Formats: sequence, structure tokens, C-alpha cells
Amino acid sequence: MTYCVGLLVERGLVFMSDTRTNAGLDNISVVSKMKTWEVPGERFLCLLSAGNLATTQATVSLLDERKLAPAERQPSILTQPSMFQTATLIGETVKEVISGSAQGGQSADAVFSASFILGGQIKGGRPRLFMIYPEGNFIEAGRDNPFFQIGEHKYGRPIIIRTYDPEMSLEDCAKLLLVSFDSTIKSNLSVGLPIDMQFYEKDSCVKGYRRRFDQRDEYYRTISDGWSDALKSAFDALPAFER
Amino acid sequence: MTYCVGLLVERGLVFMSDTRTNAGLDNISVVSKMKTWEVPGERFLCLLSAGNLATTQATVSLLDERKLAPAERQPSILTQPSMFQTATLIGETVKEVISGSAQGGQSADAVFSASFILGGQIKGGRPRLFMIYPEGNFIEAGRDNPFFQIGEHKYGRPIIIRTYDPEMSLEDCAKLLLVSFDSTIKSNLSVGLPIDMQFYEKDSCVKGYRRRFDQRDEYYRTISDGWSDALKSAFDALPAFER
Repeated sequence: MTYCVGLLVERGLVFMSDTRTNAGLDNISVVSKMKTWEVPGERFLCLLSAGNLATTQATVSLLDERKLAPAERQPSILTQPSMFQTATLIGETVKEVISGSAQGGQSADAVFSASFILGGQIKGGRPRLFMIYPEGNFIEAGRDNPFFQIGEHKYGRPIIIRTYDPEMSLEDCAKLLLVSFDSTIKSNLSVGLPIDMQFYEKDSCVKGYRRRFDQRDEYYRTISDGWSDALKSAFDALPAFER
Repeated sequence: MTYCVGLLVERGLVFMSDTRTNAGLDNISVVSKMKTWEVPGERFLCLLSAGNLATTQATVSLLDERKLAPAERQPSILTQPSMFQTATLIGETVKEVISGSAQGGQSADAVFSASFILGGQIKGGRPRLFMIYPEGNFIEAGRDNPFFQIGEHKYGRPIIIRTYDPEMSLEDCAKLLLVSFDSTIKSNLSVGLPIDMQFYEKDSCVKGYRRRFDQRDEYYRTISDGWSDALKSAFDALPAFER
């Protein structure tokens, strides 16, 4: 599995993804699941992926036009008129990749499945966040559903539901998502460090701050250890149960 | 789905189960998933169930010997020499029920599946806790894995992992499990109120305190509202992220 979150707040977008990929429990590797594109001052896009790694990598490669020689590439993902159109292009690409894998070769549709979170902004529009399904269709985040999770989403969901606030700073989003990721990593072997994080500041239309958190990262360790203590204090502060 | 937890602490056992059962999203009902048996002073047993309701109810009915007239029943579950033997009997019964449903009729094995948590004590032994699989085999809780969850277990797992302490009082276990259940109920429609709770005090060999928490329960509401606030304070107390 995988764990990725895209979070929409008034100040912009925050993306976080783990890097564990596995073909069985005895075969794990580190692969980034976060891909960004930008035309500085004009558009910024961030794509998070979960599912079959061959499918997600093929999708990203096609979007990047890696079929062409490097000099000839003018990825159409950088020329779409809107975020909606960008999501449509990604949806079509993933659908094409999955149906290509499913035809002729091994026949196990679900095995090739993949989902994506796309966020970003194109000048003139507002920051937008989408969840793209393997069927090629997608949904958009809004005031009532301001975040998307893909992969192993259940462990880390309650803390986001309870702590999210649309007026949070991007730094507070980082803290929130690290808690959500740490809870997931502590519960499930298929999600693992390091963690990639990407900020996007509203209306900047450039790639924002990026950071990778690994086992030795001091802030990550502070959060991971500190959250257990903070939870215990929070728990102790609740009124005791009486028969 | 369902959510049930059995927790082993030094002072005894605490069981909690939700009561939602559903056949599709548009057909939900309230059914208790907690069954207890006792021979006061000699043994106490508590069985939590998740999975196909027809399977779990048939299993409990067979264990109760409901095939016989009420006057003739001497449930063999009350005469097993050990908790291990009791778990074996339950495992055999559920296996028999599932294979009975799968034979001749509709053939969808997984549809008839069910899992159980069994806890209790027989005089002379110690309190023991088992998880029983639909295949009829089972595992036992111990110092390193002191609790079992069945059903929709992911949302409520991180808080138990982080807060569990073998020296907790049964009242603190109640508080912990209510937080875990509330997080699950807030995230997943297939788990719902009311919640059943059963205490078992070590070496008592009698049924302990029992309580049902519903929407109007004052303590449940205190926990549910209070936990969001407590989490927010805990979150605020963590050091801020700096770029």
C-alpha cells in the first residue's frame, strides 16, 4: 500500500506522501510518489499516486512525454487551459495505461489499478485539488471535503477530521499531516519513511517549499515521540469513567 | 461492518462492541454483538462477533444449544475444562456453520465469514483472551499483543496502541475504548451507536459491570466532544514546524 494526502486550506495546498513500495512483504523499496511540474509564475501542479507502481510510473512518464527524446518534449500537461482539463488529461492517461496492461497480457484488472491526487493552480484560477480514480473520472475538494487521502487512509483519518481548520497555516498542516502519517506508519508495515512534503502558497504559481523527512529527521522524531505523550496527557485530561 | 475490541489488563478484561448491522447502506439495524455466559464463581465467558450476522447468530445459538427445548439445555460451552477448550469448541462450531451455509446453497464462502473475540476465566486458570478465525483456529493475547479488534479496526487502532498500559484500571480502559469507538463512528457509517461494554474483574469468575452507551449517554457525549478539544490542545502543544 501507500499513504498520500492532499490538503486544501485558505493559504494554499499541502501534499504529503510516503515512499514505501512493495511486491510482497519480503520485497520493499523506497520510491517517491510525488511528482511536480511548474511553469514559474504561470502554473504549478503536484501529483500523488497510489496503486500499482508500473501503472503510476507509466502514467507519469506518458504525462512527461518520455516517449520522445528529451529535446522534443513539450508535455501537454503544462499547456492545459484549466485545472479541470489537467485532471481530465491525467484521468484519460491512467485509463489508457490500465487498459493497455489488461489487454492481451495477464488478465487481472484490479492488479493494475491506481489512484491519484492532483493539486495546483493555473494563473487566473484558484488553487484546486482533485482525486482521480482508475476509471479516469475524478472529484474535487471543496469547503465540505477539503482533503483527499489515497492508499492506507483509515488509521490517519480521525486526527485530520478532528483537527483540520481551513485557516491553518501551511506549517500547521505539515504538523497535522506528520501526526497522521506517524499514526499510520506505527500501525501498518506497508507505509514507511521517508515522507515527502510539498507546500504550495496560494496565488504564487511556483513550486513552494519541499522537504523529505527520514528516520533521523529531528522534527519528525519530536512529533512522533511528542504525540504519544501529548495524547496521553489529552487522555488523562478527559473526565474519568464512573460506574 | 462492525467494531469490537477485547482488552486484557492486569486487573481483568474489558469488552466493547458496536451494534450496527447492515444489509446494504439502506438497510441498517441495531443488534448486540456481545454474548456472555456464566456459572457464578466458576466461570465467565464473553464472546464478541463480527461478520455475517446469520453465521454469528447461528454459532451463538448452537453454543447455547437452542436446538433443544429450553429445559433440556446444558450448553457444553459451560462445561469445557479450560479456556483453550472453550475457544476450540467455538472455532469448531463456526467452521461447521460456515461450511453448512456454503454447501448446496449459494456458493460464496467469503460471504458467510465471521470472526470472534472470546475472553473470560475458568476457576483455577487465569483470565484469557482469544481471537477466533472463520477457519476455526485461533490466537491468544499476551503481554506483547494485549488486545484484539475485529471488524472496522483501523480508525481506532492508533489511540489504543499509544495509550494502552497493562496497569490501567477497568474504568480507564472504558474511557480509552470509548475514544477508539468514537473515532471509528465519526469516520465510518458501518459502525454505529449504541455501544455495549462489559467489565470482567480478574479472579471474580462472575459477570461484571455492564453498560450500554447510546446517543443520549452523558458520559459518551462528554468523551466525544471532549476528545476533539483535548486533541486540539495536544496538537497545539506540539512544537510548530519551521521551514
